[in-house]
Parts: sequence; C-alpha cells; structure tokens
Amino acid sequence: MFVRNTWYVAAWASEVGPDTLMARTLLGVPVVLWRDSDGRPLAFEDRCCHRGAPLSVGRREGNCLRCMYHGMKFDADGICVEIPAQDRIPATARVKTFRVVEQGTFLWIWMGDEAKCDPALIPQTPWMESPEWAHLEGYTYYDTSYLLISDNLLDLAHLPFVHATTLGGDESYADTPAKIEALDNGVRVTRWVRAINPPPFVQKVKAYEGKIDRWNNYDFMIPGIFLMDSGVAPTGTGAPEGNRVDAAEFRSTQALTPETEHSTHYFYSQPHNFAVDKPEVTKSIHQSVVDAFEEDRAMIRAQSRSLDLEPGFKMVPLAADQALGRFRWLVNKLVTAEQAAAGATPAAPIGAKPAAAAPAASAPAKSPSLASA
Amino acid sequence: MFVRNTWYVAAWASEVGPDTLMARTLLGVPVVLWRDSDGRPLAFEDRCCHRGAPLSVGRREGNCLRCMYHGMKFDADGICVEIPAQDRIPATARVKTFRVVEQGTFLWIWMGDEAKCDPALIPQTPWMESPEWAHLEGYTYYDTSYLLISDNLLDLAHLPFVHATTLGGDESYADTPAKIEALDNGVRVTRWVRAINPPPFVQKVKAYEGKIDRWNNYDFMIPGIFLMDSGVAPTGTGAPEGNRVDAAEFRSTQALTPETEHSTHYFYSQPHNFAVDKPEVTKSIHQSVVDAFEEDRAMIRAQSRSLDLEPGFKMVPLAADQALGRFRWLVNKLVTAEQAAAGATPAAPIGAKPAAAAPAASAPAKSPSLASA
Amino acid sequence: MFVRNTWYVAAWASEVGPDTLMARTLLGVPVVLWRDSDGRPLAFEDRCCHRGAPLSVGRREGNCLRCMYHGMKFDADGICVEIPAQDRIPATARVKTFRVVEQGTFLWIWMGDEAKCDPALIPQTPWMESPEWAHLEGYTYYDTSYLLISDNLLDLAHLPFVHATTLGGDESYADTPAKIEALDNGVRVTRWVRAINPPPFVQKVKAYEGKIDRWNNYDFMIPGIFLMDSGVAPTGTGAPEGNRVDAAEFRSTQALTPETEHSTHYFYSQPHNFAVDKPEVTKSIHQSVVDAFEEDRAMIRAQSRSLDLEPGFKMVPLAADQALGRFRWLVNKLVTAEQAAAGATPAAPIGAKPAAAAPAASAPAKSPSLASA
Repeated sequence: MFVRNTWYVAAWASEVGPDTLMARTLLGVPVVLWRDSDGRPLAFEDRCCHRGAPLSVGRREGNCLRCMYHGMKFDADGICVEIPAQDRIPATARVKTFRVVEQGTFLWIWMGDEAKCDPALIPQTPWMESPEWAHLEGYTYYDTSYLLISDNLLDLAHLPFVHATTLGGDESYADTPAKIEALDNGVRVTRWVRAINPPPFVQKVKAYEGKIDRWNNYDFMIPGIFLMDSGVAPTGTGAPEGNRVDAAEFRSTQALTPETEHSTHYFYSQPHNFAVDKPEVTKSIHQSVVDAFEEDRAMIRAQSRSLDLEPGFKMVPLAADQALGRFRWLVNKLVTAEQAAAGATPAAPIGAKPAAAAPAASAPAKSPSLASA
Repeated sequence: MFVRNTWYVAAWASEVGPDTLMARTLLGVPVVLWRDSDGRPLAFEDRCCHRGAPLSVGRREGNCLRCMYHGMKFDADGICVEIPAQDRIPATARVKTFRVVEQGTFLWIWMGDEAKCDPALIPQTPWMESPEWAHLEGYTYYDTSYLLISDNLLDLAHLPFVHATTLGGDESYADTPAKIEALDNGVRVTRWVRAINPPPFVQKVKAYEGKIDRWNNYDFMIPGIFLMDSGVAPTGTGAPEGNRVDAAEFRSTQALTPETEHSTHYFYSQPHNFAVDKPEVTKSIHQSVVDAFEEDRAMIRAQSRSLDLEPGFKMVPLAADQALGRFRWLVNKLVTAEQAAAGATPAAPIGAKPAAAAPAASAPAKSPSLASA
Repeated sequence: MFVRNTWYVAAWASEVGPDTLMARTLLGVPVVLWRDSDGRPLAFEDRCCHRGAPLSVGRREGNCLRCMYHGMKFDADGICVEIPAQDRIPATARVKTFRVVEQGTFLWIWMGDEAKCDPALIPQTPWMESPEWAHLEGYTYYDTSYLLISDNLLDLAHLPFVHATTLGGDESYADTPAKIEALDNGVRVTRWVRAINPPPFVQKVKAYEGKIDRWNNYDFMIPGIFLMDSGVAPTGTGAPEGNRVDAAEFRSTQALTPETEHSTHYFYSQPHNFAVDKPEVTKSIHQSVVDAFEEDRAMIRAQSRSLDLEPGFKMVPLAADQALGRFRWLVNKLVTAEQAAAGATPAAPIGAKPAAAAPAASAPAKSPSLASA
C-alpha cells in the first residue's frame, strides 16, 4: 500500500561512499545501494537470484558486484557475468535494478513503473547545496507507518504541545489556523502567527528584543516530501507583507520513505540562512530538531501502539485535520489507480478519510516548489 | 474473553498520586488512571478521540486532562471542553470513562455494563486498613493468561513442590486434600493440616517448639480475587475446633486483572496480625511471598510456553482439580451469558473443562467474605 | 514438515550428565533428556500430563521423574506411579516417551513410528570414539530452517567465498565441480581439487611446502547427517589414485536437528588423524571450524531474512545445485509418504524443486558409510 510511481529518498548521498554496500529495505524490498568505479550510484534488489543471499554482504569488483555466498558476479545492469564452475549463464541469472539519481544531497530511487520514470519529477532543493545556507544531515528510524508521521507534519498545531522547549513555544501559536491549499501532488500549508515570543530553538541562536512574527509555509508532497519556508522576524516585518528584516529563515527539508507498511526511514535537515559560517549555530539548530523529532517519535510510537490495540477506532475529525485528510485521500487515490492499472483488486482505504472535502486542486505543478520560493 | 460485569483491581491506591497519569492496559483497553483536584480517582480510556494519542502523556489541568498532541482538553466526565483554533466542539468529541472506587487500599474499576455497576459488590477487605494487621503492597506482571494463575491459586497442593524453601515446607502437606465448596461467584477452599513443621516463611519470624497445625482457607472469586484466612498454631490449637493460641495469622489478599488475553497484572499482599509494630517482620514475610511468587511465575510461564506449543493438549484431570475446574466453568458461564446478552456469538470455552461436576452452589453471598470471618 | 521415521541427534552424550534434566525442543516437541540410576539415557515429552508443566524443572528420584508443580511421579516408562492425596491413578496418567540410543558420542532419538524404530539404522561414526582420531564437540543454534543449512552443506563451492580465511582458501577451488551421486537415503558428493594452496585452517597446524591436493568427499543423509572424508596431501599424493603420504585427514561429523520449522540445533566436530596427542592442534582446528560456522550462520540468517521478505521468490537453479536439489526432493518424498501413511493430506512441497533430474539411485545402503571408508 505505497505509491510506487514516485521518487523516494533512498539515502543521504553521503551515506554511500565508494566502498559502501548499504543494505536498506525500501517499500518492503531489500535494496543494496552502492557506487560503481566512477562514483555513479546504483541500486540492486539485495537478493542474489540464485539462493536469495544478500548482495550487500558481497564484494564490489570494479563496476560489478559479486555475491559472496557461491560467487556469482553481476554487472552494473544486474546481469550475471560469471558463475564458478559453470560456463553457460542462464538468461534468468540477473538481479532487479532500480534507477537512482543523486540530487540535492540525496540519493533518489524510483521503484515503480520504469516507463514512467522521469528525473525531472524529483523535487528541487537548491538550498541544500547553496553556500548561503548551512545544515547538518539527520536520520531517524520509526517502527510505525509513515502515514502517522505524515499526519504529524500536516498539522503543526502540535508544535507548542509536543515541542514546548524545542520547536514550539507559546501555546497561542496553535490558536492561529493554517491555510490549506490542494496541490496536484500534495498539500500547501501556510501559517502566519504575529507578535509572539520566539520559539526556544531560535532563542538559543539569535537574540530578539520583543515579540516576533513567525511563519511556517510548506508543501507536503507525495510520497512524503516536506519542504518548508519558515522563520521569524521582528513583529511587523515577518508578516506576509513584511520585508523580513533581521529575520532568521529556515528551509526544513524532510523525506519519509517507508521501510515496510509498519516502519519508516526519516531523513531531515534544517538549513538556515544566518550565521552560516558559525558551525556552533548550525549544530545548535540541528540539535534542537533532533531533540524535537525524538519528542515526535515518542508521541507517534505511543499513538501507533494505541491504535494497534483498537483497529476499529473511529477518529473524531477536527477542522485542523484538513491537510492530513487531503493527503491521505491523495495517497489512497494514487494507490488505487496504480493497483487498477496493474490489474490488482483495489485494497481497502488506508486510515482515516479526509476530514472535509478536498479543495479544488491548484494549478498543476510538476516540479513542486515552496509556496514562497 | 473476560467477565466484564465485575469489579477489577486497577491499581494500588498508592500507585496513583495527585500528579500521576498512570497508563495501564486492563482487559485489553488502555486506561489512564488519575485523580482530580480533590483526589477523586478517575479512569479514562487512554486514547484521545481525535487521533488516538495516549492521554497518559498529557497534562492534568485542575479537574481536566489535556491531550498533549494537539491540545484538546477534556473534563472529568471525558467531555471535550476546548480545541485549539476551533470554536465549535463536536458532540462526538469525548473519551470513554470508567467508574473507579477507592476501597481497601485498592482502586477498583468497572469496565462492564454501566447499568449493572454497583459498588456494594466490591469485596470487603477490612484487614487492609486495620491497625491490627500489617502488610506491604506487592505487584508483579505475567505474560500469561490470568487463568493459569487462577489455576495455581486454586490448588495449594503445589506449595511444598514449588515453594519448598518459602511458603511450602513438608511435602506431606500435599497429602491432605482440601475441601471444596461452590460459591455463587467463586469457590471456597478449606484445608487443615495437623502436626507438621512450620513453613519456612513462618520459621523466619516466629519460633515454635514442635509441630504446628496449619490452615489455608480462602474464597477465590470472580474475576480473580483471592482472600485467605491462613495461619499456624501449636498443634492441637490450630485445628478447626482449636483456639489459635499463640497463632501466626495471615489474610493473604490477592487480585488478578487481565492486561490482555495473554498477560496479567497481579496485586498481592500478606497481612499478618502479630508483631505488627515490627517492620522487619512485615518485611521478612513480604519478601518470602515475593520470592515465592517468582517461583510460581517461573513455573507458570514455563507451563504457558509448553501449552502454546501444543494447542490440542488434553490435560489429565486429577481429584485436586475440582476447585479450578469449578472456577473455569464459572468464568465460561458468565462470559457466555454476557456475550449472549450483547447479541454476540458465544466463543469457544476457555481452557479445560471442570474435572468433576461442580458441587451445588452454597447460599448466595453477594458480598463474599472469608470462610472464617 | 519433518521426516519422522529416522534417527535424529538429540544431544552430545556429554551434555546429559547423571543429574541433568535437559530441556530441548526437537521437531516442535519439547523433550526432557535425562539418565536413570544406571546412566541409561531417557527422553520424555517435557510436559506433565496433568496441567502441562515442564518435567525438566522437575526432580529425578532414582529411576523416576517427579513433576515439581503438583508432585506427580513418573517411572522410566513415563507411567504415573504417584499422585499426592489421590490413591487411584488414572490409566491416562502417563507422559509420552521416546527411544534414545547412545552411540558414537551422540544421543540419538527416534520420534516417528515406533514399529519402524531400528537402532541398526543409526549411522556409524567409529572415528568419534577411536584413539587414532581427536576432536572437540561443537554446537550452535540457528533461527532458520534446517533446510537452508542443508543447502549450504550440499554445495561446498561456497568455501572460498564465505570462508576465505578459515576453511576456504583459493577461489579456484570453486571452479572444480563436484561429482554427485544419489544414495537411497541421501546424496554422495565427491570433489578432488589438485595443486592448490592449503586452506588457512590447515596452514595453522601443518606446514606444507608447495601445492597440495585437497579432497572433500561426503555423504549427506536423511535427516541431516553429514559425514565427510576430507583432507590435503602434497600434490600428486592426494589425488584419488594417490597414497595420501604426509596427509592431513579429517572426518567432519555434523548433524542438523530441527527445533521447529524455523530453528535448528546444529552439532558438529572435525576429527583429525595427525598430531592427535597435541591438544593445541585439536583446539586450533576446532576453532577454525567454530569461526567458519559463524560465517555460515551470518550468511544463512541473512539469506533466511531475505527469503522471508519475498515468499514468492523464484530461485535461479545452477548446475552446482544438483546435490541440494536431490536432497530436498528426497525430504519431500519421504514427508509426503509419511503423511499419506498417516492419512493426512499431503502438504505443499518444501522450498525449491531439484535443479535437475536426480540421478538414478546407487545401490541401496541402509547403513550409509563414507565414500572412502
């Protein structure tokens, strides 16, 4: 029950070095991520076609990968080119490969229909490679469905409650509703809160006198890509019509990739555009996010266990659920369409239905960008 | 497969302080136990009606409880009284509550039909609060069905075998059969053993010259409440017709509460009526019971694993199984009746059938008391 | 899905001392292994017929075993001879027993049809008790099916890849195909490799100048008994027609016994016939095998997890799979026949089909012996 015809983050590019054979299960499929002699990233199903041994405990030999159980060797296209003590190589002796693209500090993988694979669909994240922004790379692992994490990201009203001492701050933040817009491939969320105190993670790295305005404007896109323009500025200058003078801006960049139906890889970073030459500032901001994401993880794991105990639980929808409702509706629609195209019987819908009718889709945007970009 | 229309021990009253939000799953339902500003105990289903987050990681605000995921606030009746950024509160925005009564050092919970909820049905345990008796509070956790623990408590012939160095003693103890009587809501077990050595746990705290008589008389009642008059006295004085001169008496008070079908909360204590002003005596007695209950737990967990390996295993019933057979028969009868009343299809019987026809029920006793009380 | 009418290794004889009550699950059945007063090995189902408590936490009393839950006592035939507080002993009060034979340092158990139980079918392993050979006893535990371990043992082409620094050595070893012959109850594998370097485990204990010949000739028999004549000798003398002058010979003796469908007991040893009076040599050889078997275990567990993720995985058969294909075919045939005889519906075949048509069976050999013996 995953959308397949979409790009997923498989890894931070930095995780896969020249000699790495990284085993990582993605969408239920064990994958080995590696690089050929030229540093080109490759992804094979991590299962030798012979007896199913993992290739990630194999050996790279130039542009080939050798299974270290019985010694079969595969080239960069996954085709077997050598079998010990056997001259004839069967045509079926090959392993499945997946298209991988290195872009914006990530390795992106396509695990769906190859005919639809288009690297132009990969979201642009220029701030990840720009000298005007600084960030550290974060990763965490969840033993829950990615959809519960999506829900979390689609209602930031949880900030002051879950993250009182990190990303949150004044509880009045939650009283300002967000504006929700439908995108073809996701949801756009816009929230402007005026004249509140700076959140703790900002207070640690930048001094403001008096109240600030705060904004959190983001696109959350299939399959689980979160790109946010957020920040704070002295009150009056941080509003939509303001000039962001003396602002602290961030480009939170996050990606959820299901490991299985019940576990998730979570990649995240929090680029900032001030004090970019001060590693201690970057480190402080990153640590606040790390701490906050542990707060989320504790809540979401507890929620997941609670839901597992009562599969028939009917959630009471609130107005604030509009964004997550839209996103779950979209996931269901895409999965159902993919299954129908594959001739499969459509499965039951995932999770909750939309809290409200989804707003009409905004103009198509194949390369989604930030609301404020 | 639990009896629902009955009072269960949810916790020792002392476990839930003024600021405690105790998460405990009872009968498969996650519950949060807490107290309002006046110290009145309350129990909510531990699952916010919005997205299922546990309320036990929430925040008490006077007589209300706030969910700390998205900030919904519930009053002492479980009714939502506040939603951030939303004025209209849906009528469905409430969490399930359960009736809780504090009595005899326990918090008792009713999880069945509210129309049948009657605090007068809670067993009386006056010795738990009397200055003439002293005890410590015990708790242990089983990853087995409560029925295997009930079985254990309903045949004390296991004492000399499982508890040779703690509660047991002479193996001849097991040669004296117990007398079994049916109660409306349980079983009464009476065993008098004459002229044996004192059991080890008594030897540690009270010196006897020569043999003693020993008695273990108890009611074991739905849902799993064990109330025992037991003790030892110099032989001749401890028999039914004796005067219990120089006796050491105990009022073992135990309660089994299923966490799930396969796990159990076990509350226990061993009040004694001698040397009540000597904490070291109370501590020694308690420690003997703690040690003994670990012996039981090791045996019952091993038994449970053994039975799990062979679901079709047919037990060979012995004469000593009369009490446990009666109790399991009663559980089945009550569960079946509750399910029939609820319009559900009766489930298959739990576990073994009674070893023998249950004796005719004794006179109805709605507030069961000790045989010797 | 196990062959039942066959002898399994239950334990090393040395594991069961005079006072041992060893609990070990074999073929899904919990068994207690013990010895009577005369040292005769016995095996009971490890489950008291009364309430299912394990007898392995019981007490040996002469030639009897007492359950330490409620005190039932069973004689060496598993018949109950004492019940506390009960004079009449029901005819059903007995526990299942299994035939055990101590032979060749092992305790062998028969868990099938008693009418077919014939100790003459137990494989002979005279080197295990001969002063001309020295060995240490090994045991390891797998949480995988025994069939994946059988597969491993039936294609030693994995040696140079999995065991480069222990049992393996030159990768050219894998280029020489093995000769496969069918036995009535297994497979005979013969491999002669000429003029290679000695494998690392031999280099550690015996110095050779120049190349050696190496042979690995073994029978792998139902249910999972591996008996190998292997060794090295200076090249020219180790070939089939050679005289094995200055040879280092081994009689690897291994046995797989399923604990459950998904877990396995693995008994192994590596007797050698040189330097038998030097414990450090025996220890070095044994340690090389221990290390190598950990290498196998890591690979096979990884393979098992990989296969579990994709139950529909179709293996690509290679020429080298002939032996394992034959063995799996034989297991299926025997299991199907046993189930048909028991009136059960035949289950689906286990695992992969033979890679090629099995060769015609060689002459029947009820007591299989080594190819070279």
